[in-house]
Amino acid sequence: MTKKPLILVTNDDGINAPGIRALIEVINTIGDVVVVAPDSPQSGMGHAITINSTLYVWQINSDNEPQLEYCCSGTPADCVKLGVREILDRKPDLCVSGINHGSNSSINVIYSGTMSAAIEAGIEGIPAIGFSLLDYKWKANFEPCKPFVKTITENALKYGIPKDVVLNVNIPNVSKEQIKGIKICRQAKANWVEAFDKRQNPQGRDYYWLSGKFVNLDSGEDTDEWALENNYVSVVPTQFDLTAHKHIKTLNRWDLNAQLKH
Amino acid sequence: MTKKPLILVTNDDGINAPGIRALIEVINTIGDVVVVAPDSPQSGMGHAITINSTLYVWQINSDNEPQLEYCCSGTPADCVKLGVREILDRKPDLCVSGINHGSNSSINVIYSGTMSAAIEAGIEGIPAIGFSLLDYKWKANFEPCKPFVKTITENALKYGIPKDVVLNVNIPNVSKEQIKGIKICRQAKANWVEAFDKRQNPQGRDYYWLSGKFVNLDSGEDTDEWALENNYVSVVPTQFDLTAHKHIKTLNRWDLNAQLKH
Repeated sequence: MTKKPLILVTNDDGINAPGIRALIEVINTIGDVVVVAPDSPQSGMGHAITINSTLYVWQINSDNEPQLEYCCSGTPADCVKLGVREILDRKPDLCVSGINHGSNSSINVIYSGTMSAAIEAGIEGIPAIGFSLLDYKWKANFEPCKPFVKTITENALKYGIPKDVVLNVNIPNVSKEQIKGIKICRQAKANWVEAFDKRQNPQGRDYYWLSGKFVNLDSGEDTDEWALENNYVSVVPTQFDLTAHKHIKTLNRWDLNAQLKH
Repeated sequence: MTKKPLILVTNDDGINAPGIRALIEVINTIGDVVVVAPDSPQSGMGHAITINSTLYVWQINSDNEPQLEYCCSGTPADCVKLGVREILDRKPDLCVSGINHGSNSSINVIYSGTMSAAIEAGIEGIPAIGFSLLDYKWKANFEPCKPFVKTITENALKYGIPKDVVLNVNIPNVSKEQIKGIKICRQAKANWVEAFDKRQNPQGRDYYWLSGKFVNLDSGEDTDEWALENNYVSVVPTQFDLTAHKHIKTLNRWDLNAQLKH
């Protein structure tokens, strides 16, 4: 009998989110599952870690399924660190994060707690995948995601994710039949044009809500945005070496040391 | 008369940190300075943004120097978004973040609020630099940093930072005379081996403090870690396209679509 892989499951919408419940259901069919996830929603936390306050972790039983589940008071990245160091007795074979309620395509990867958890695992040398569905609603329908989550996870276990790479998977919000397939992509160049919503509190003091409009600046057909608009599941190999290697030469032409000699 | 550049200054240690005070002092000699910085320390916030709570911003006067100063209740990335959209009446010519109390070299860039502010500016199309001193202490000596901050900033304004690149500058904690020069580097491969400090609260409940040991896994002499250990100021061109381009081909060999056809 082949030993089942040990898979750490986390997310950023919190342990009770429907997205992580759908993910657990799929991953239970593939491996032994340990969940370590935030006790409350952590969207937009980026790669935050908790260094100036304390962390609590406690076990819960949310259903009669075989996974072990732990709640954590920290961020998604904290959950992975705690899972690996304090909860699991061996290094997991894979870490999966999500399914996020909302897109983490293109520049959203930078702000994403879902992807920060996957990247944290990647830094620890654990193969990792972040999954997101393009529907922000709490009651989003995760059913059509399941076969794609299963296929991608099984492929990752079979072939191995390249070293120092984490997969960023986004799934269009359409029926399973409408999805044309899975496409390997690059991150589209895009940004958010913020429009702060300025209001007054009951004491008359101004405050702001962050809001904004997503702007895709990239028409490339090899991008995740193109894939998603055309009903493909996008998979972007994502790295945490942020060096812009090709610009090292450019910067070496600056006068950085000339002036300091005087 | 040449118009002075408009420079947005921010950080993650908070508007009252000695590091940002040193930065403001240098930048006041180069341009017109507007400070938008967190009201309290935000270290380890990564690229967090505030989407589920409100943001406050208010003007302060901390000294008699020429800069305009605003405090913000949000994260470093929030400060840049608010500065650009709500406070400044034109796009700044440059954004500088820091000087951080502690290293943001190698993998620390991922967790860094200082660098997330600079990266946020980069995403907005604003040339940006994050500065950090390798001394975590509040009373760190920022004097030796100043000529290096000035030279790098002046070079950035003169030559222009390449598009979609942000500079990650780290400064060794030694005297000015000991610093051998400024070196363009790549991000060293490194990680943190966490060792959670488990304690009990007065009610007998377990909690954790995150702590850990930094491990440099990279002996390359072209890395930021090598430069810093050898008393160079390190400058890493840092990008926010996280695509691992060279692995797109590898992933195209997986059976991602074969299984879905059945």
